[in-house]
Amino acid sequence: MATAPSVSYSMTVRLEVPASGTAVSQLTTAVESSGGSVTGLDVTASGHEKLRIDVTIAATSTSHADEIVEGLRGIEGVVLGKVSDRTFLMHLGGKIEMASKHPIRNRDDLSMIYTPGVARVCMAIAENPEDARRLTIKRNTVAVVTDGSAVLGLGNIGPMAAMPVMEGKAALFKRFADIDAWPICLDTQDTDAIVEIVKAIAPGFAGINLEDISAPRCFEIEARLREALDIPVFHDDQHGTAIVVLAALTNALRVVGKGIGDVRVVMSGAGAAGTAILKLLIAAGVKHAVVADIHGVVHAGREDLVSADADSPLRWIADNTNPESMTGTLKQAVVDADVFIGVSAPNVLDGADVAAMAEDAIVFALANPDPEVDPAIARQTAAVVATGRSDFPNQINNVLVFPGVFRGLLDAQSRTVNTEMMLAAARALADVVAEDELNANYIIPSVFNDRVAGAVAGAVRDAAKAAGGAAKASGELG
Amino acid sequence: MATAPSVSYSMTVRLEVPASGTAVSQLTTAVESSGGSVTGLDVTASGHEKLRIDVTIAATSTSHADEIVEGLRGIEGVVLGKVSDRTFLMHLGGKIEMASKHPIRNRDDLSMIYTPGVARVCMAIAENPEDARRLTIKRNTVAVVTDGSAVLGLGNIGPMAAMPVMEGKAALFKRFADIDAWPICLDTQDTDAIVEIVKAIAPGFAGINLEDISAPRCFEIEARLREALDIPVFHDDQHGTAIVVLAALTNALRVVGKGIGDVRVVMSGAGAAGTAILKLLIAAGVKHAVVADIHGVVHAGREDLVSADADSPLRWIADNTNPESMTGTLKQAVVDADVFIGVSAPNVLDGADVAAMAEDAIVFALANPDPEVDPAIARQTAAVVATGRSDFPNQINNVLVFPGVFRGLLDAQSRTVNTEMMLAAARALADVVAEDELNANYIIPSVFNDRVAGAVAGAVRDAAKAAGGAAKASGELG
Repeated sequence: MATAPSVSYSMTVRLEVPASGTAVSQLTTAVESSGGSVTGLDVTASGHEKLRIDVTIAATSTSHADEIVEGLRGIEGVVLGKVSDRTFLMHLGGKIEMASKHPIRNRDDLSMIYTPGVARVCMAIAENPEDARRLTIKRNTVAVVTDGSAVLGLGNIGPMAAMPVMEGKAALFKRFADIDAWPICLDTQDTDAIVEIVKAIAPGFAGINLEDISAPRCFEIEARLREALDIPVFHDDQHGTAIVVLAALTNALRVVGKGIGDVRVVMSGAGAAGTAILKLLIAAGVKHAVVADIHGVVHAGREDLVSADADSPLRWIADNTNPESMTGTLKQAVVDADVFIGVSAPNVLDGADVAAMAEDAIVFALANPDPEVDPAIARQTAAVVATGRSDFPNQINNVLVFPGVFRGLLDAQSRTVNTEMMLAAARALADVVAEDELNANYIIPSVFNDRVAGAVAGAVRDAAKAAGGAAKASGELG
Repeated sequence: MATAPSVSYSMTVRLEVPASGTAVSQLTTAVESSGGSVTGLDVTASGHEKLRIDVTIAATSTSHADEIVEGLRGIEGVVLGKVSDRTFLMHLGGKIEMASKHPIRNRDDLSMIYTPGVARVCMAIAENPEDARRLTIKRNTVAVVTDGSAVLGLGNIGPMAAMPVMEGKAALFKRFADIDAWPICLDTQDTDAIVEIVKAIAPGFAGINLEDISAPRCFEIEARLREALDIPVFHDDQHGTAIVVLAALTNALRVVGKGIGDVRVVMSGAGAAGTAILKLLIAAGVKHAVVADIHGVVHAGREDLVSADADSPLRWIADNTNPESMTGTLKQAVVDADVFIGVSAPNVLDGADVAAMAEDAIVFALANPDPEVDPAIARQTAAVVATGRSDFPNQINNVLVFPGVFRGLLDAQSRTVNTEMMLAAARALADVVAEDELNANYIIPSVFNDRVAGAVAGAVRDAAKAAGGAAKASGELG
């Protein structure tokens, strides 16, 4: 599977070239013969003798970018200047900032925004804490919390190195749902400590988005925080992924004309995302699921499970899947399966495995950047294929979900997030693809589809309000 | 001391009045006869019969505002509409927000700001943690941390009710020093817990501004955090206040022609601010200081001090002030004093006490909103008077200090903040008042003086760089 040049490996190279001769035309040729792609060419200074040119080039990797630059150095008469990495340039000084909503021009502004006027607002909240949602940023803020233990596919790189992802997440919250999120990167990976810290910082936020926290700690942290806090706690790596997968599966099943209660689903991966996907699929009506992890198919009699804790995530999987007590390998399990969902590792399946699936098979190979099976090969026999990559059709991307989910929760002033709300989000996301748009290469909308966040938000808001009303009616907190 | 109508008790009243007749002219008269002040009068709709008018009115208190509205109700033909409190209006939905520095317009933007491009930036920081200050928001962010235990003069109102102050502080950080600050309001008042939490959230920030945490816990929290963290920790209620007071005292002494090593200083208040002011004044050269608290003058033989811990703040005061072992009351102590500094409670002194001070006395009566002595009365005999209020000359306001101090610390990438940097900040702030501007009513510049933040920042940056260099030279961390 060849990788195309990507803007995420994009650089701008400053060059001086002779004004006459063929050097300029040789530039593009040189880049393309190295497998790169020229995406911009700007003359930034010109004289009788020389031109100064900024060439923007997409490469496939950092080492590829270096190769391309070396190639340019070989052109006669070209003097190489500064090479700027565009992705790094966009990160200089960070990607987000704090902004004041009001100008502070004079003493009058100061006396209302700060002392002495602010004291009356403080007292109003002290007397009626619910007013914090009216008179402070609380109603629109989400803490993006990580301990840096499982950042993207990079592993345990720590809180400081996780910052660029969390800032990016905050920027996406704003872009797609007008939510004010702030990154909180924790210098501890102790479960108890994380629970205590997030509980303590909660007063200033209306929601907690846990991010890139490794399994199995993420399950306990989330469960304890949900129990303790009166604001929704959402682990995006789990539930965001689960919601997009359910939405995509809903539409894929529409394409092949199968019912969710009838299909046999085989999953690869029993980590945070895998477990959450499984739970949501079961809640949505999946009856026949089998999960495989690195040790093969999960079943109650498997050696590592006999002695597992009763509340361990793997135990839950064993108890709630694989009713026929199938054993063996993933490759054995996928034979005749209707649906494969991978959230695990590259290349665990090949074309023959996909060909052995049931007719009109659905393959979601979500490992990133290298999927569980080459999507081009899978598509030769499967009816619908989706990946986590942006350079294939049907990208399963959490950005489709988390902004709208939190917008809905915040608008409903929800104190929690539950399975009903997640199912509602998945239905709404699936329904953004209209009946006459639906086909095997379009089961899920683009992240830049304007209707996505609003549709998801509306569905979650309604579900949250219904849940809040029901909780109130039964005398519980919502 | 009569209080003038203030914009911090300002409201906008919507009225319908007959188009003919004298109702409109009666409005202003009615407001002024109730002691209010009309600051705006806008006709928002007009017809042959009626006018709709929005009148903006400043009052002296909430109950006064109610009285004024009742007065308007008495005017014949006037129909009262909605009454809007301008301070509350400015707080609706909070005062700050998160903003993305880059637009996210398309897939290319997304792939650089977020996945997959962001992964390279994360790895760069994982390999070289110092790069976090280059490639994330860390270099320009400050956490404004409170537990809501001592908010303004309002006391222990808790973290949620403290939010409006912390948001205001963040807005001021941006306005005066272009710093991105975010409020962190903690739902715990346990010293150990606060220390652990702030340590844990530190990776994403370049500085910690502690705010409105009650004494004596604030001393321990600050000391332990300074020890533990490699970013500066600054308790503004202590050190911000101390720096402004030292700057103002420096200039007040210039006005009266006395030397800082020669004057006898009497302080009222031994809380967080009082203790920090005392320490900084001693560092600046004050040799004769006496402190009184609610139990009278602090001396080593005082009953509550004999058994006090060796490291208690009051013990430190007893050991470092009052060399003549003076006993008695504050009123006795101020006789013949050159300088009085109050950070305590309203009206602990009267005009006779000030008259009994030395010639060319300096009085800083900083209790807010009601000073230790009526400044108008103090000014009858004292040479220089300052307060914490904005409606008298010489306002001692922390806004003069904290933005510039943090700007300087951040620009120097300082790992700490020490007494030398604070002394430098005070000198720079004092020097903003030029020799030919200096007089008894202008010892300290306005918070809206454009030169303040830059002058303070420059002085702190230079001192921090010098400290960092010295620390490096001696092999220590700065």
